[in-house]
Amino acid sequence: MTKLVLLRHGQSIWNQEGRFTGWMDVDLSDKGRSEAGYAGQLMHSTGLAFDAAYTSVLKRAIRTLWIVLDEMDLMWIPIHASWRLNERFYGDLQGRSKIEMEDKYGALQVHRWRRAFRERPIALSPGGERDPKNDPRYKHLDIGQIPISESLEDTQNRLLPLWHGKIAIDLKNGKNVLVVSHGNTIRAHIKYLENISDQDIEMVEIPTGVPLVYDVDDHLRLKASWHLSR
Amino acid sequence: MTKLVLLRHGQSIWNQEGRFTGWMDVDLSDKGRSEAGYAGQLMHSTGLAFDAAYTSVLKRAIRTLWIVLDEMDLMWIPIHASWRLNERFYGDLQGRSKIEMEDKYGALQVHRWRRAFRERPIALSPGGERDPKNDPRYKHLDIGQIPISESLEDTQNRLLPLWHGKIAIDLKNGKNVLVVSHGNTIRAHIKYLENISDQDIEMVEIPTGVPLVYDVDDHLRLKASWHLSR
Repeated sequence: MTKLVLLRHGQSIWNQEGRFTGWMDVDLSDKGRSEAGYAGQLMHSTGLAFDAAYTSVLKRAIRTLWIVLDEMDLMWIPIHASWRLNERFYGDLQGRSKIEMEDKYGALQVHRWRRAFRERPIALSPGGERDPKNDPRYKHLDIGQIPISESLEDTQNRLLPLWHGKIAIDLKNGKNVLVVSHGNTIRAHIKYLENISDQDIEMVEIPTGVPLVYDVDDHLRLKASWHLSR
Repeated sequence: MTKLVLLRHGQSIWNQEGRFTGWMDVDLSDKGRSEAGYAGQLMHSTGLAFDAAYTSVLKRAIRTLWIVLDEMDLMWIPIHASWRLNERFYGDLQGRSKIEMEDKYGALQVHRWRRAFRERPIALSPGGERDPKNDPRYKHLDIGQIPISESLEDTQNRLLPLWHGKIAIDLKNGKNVLVVSHGNTIRAHIKYLENISDQDIEMVEIPTGVPLVYDVDDHLRLKASWHLSR
């Protein structure tokens, strides 16, 4: 029996400002740093320890992981940073205010973009600083792998190869694994892990900085899950 | 032509106190954190960027690397943490005061232990909290790989498989590589890279937080080297 912990990064500056973030590399707010430290202390106090960690290539997740590992005295464990754990790519919404988008497109449409499984936001036009093609961290990807917009399903489709190819193998090998990622990435992940319906996933929201703990058996069945909080 | 940068961690708390550290997991001092930040800013300002980073499993090196990558906006690059980059294992000297050891064994003997290529300090007795066999970060090692004392030559011998097996391959593949390690590890490393004699290496000292930059050609010949400092 091993442990899998999914953790959403602490509050980011754009979470605070109510802006869509997606693949934009926005840092944690001060509150987000505190949330990360608190999550690390909480896991450490329950005696949890990890053998490996996974995160996205976005600094709000990486910094959360670093703060957590520091609190748990586990800075030395292997860290695997992958674009497959990035937040959902929010297309043209990235960087824009949630309220302004509701004024422009209507609250219902914005809600669908945020919550529905198969809804893709308006695509990002190529070029400019929001285009990941110009970012060195994605230069090793095939051009077809770089999104212009993603539904939650798209996010799940690019996440699962990392799950099957790496994370699940670590768990089968008896390792305790920590995955620090993003709100929609975790929704896509637990939809698969817990076999949640397309309908029900619309109601699932993931809080920042709260460890979601699974017991995993040798057949990768999830035995129990709970949120760690005081 | 690629870049290899070797960087000794910033000042640690035991550097400050004049104690032998070795594999003891001592954190950076406040001065050490500043040195790390300064090294990162310096490299960033010269336009250096890295594709991969290597470090030890000791937090004074890992924290230095994290601070540097944060300053360079490169938190997302792959990080490989290996015991092969640990500081020299200082045997029974670990945790002890340099001045007290000089009083006990004589300044000449302590100098030999610190500087000579083939001198091994007094071995560590098994058991207790200084014994790496009780530390989870070394549990995957064969018992014969865990030292009781190391000469600089021993350090070089366990370092070189990582150089040949990983770092050199990254460089051959055109990657710029940052290696953050320790005073004696870097002495062992550059003795090999620059073919320094057993005699001459006794005079080489590595300052904390000063990037040592090499241009490396396709045949892994070092084309030039300099210390980055203002």
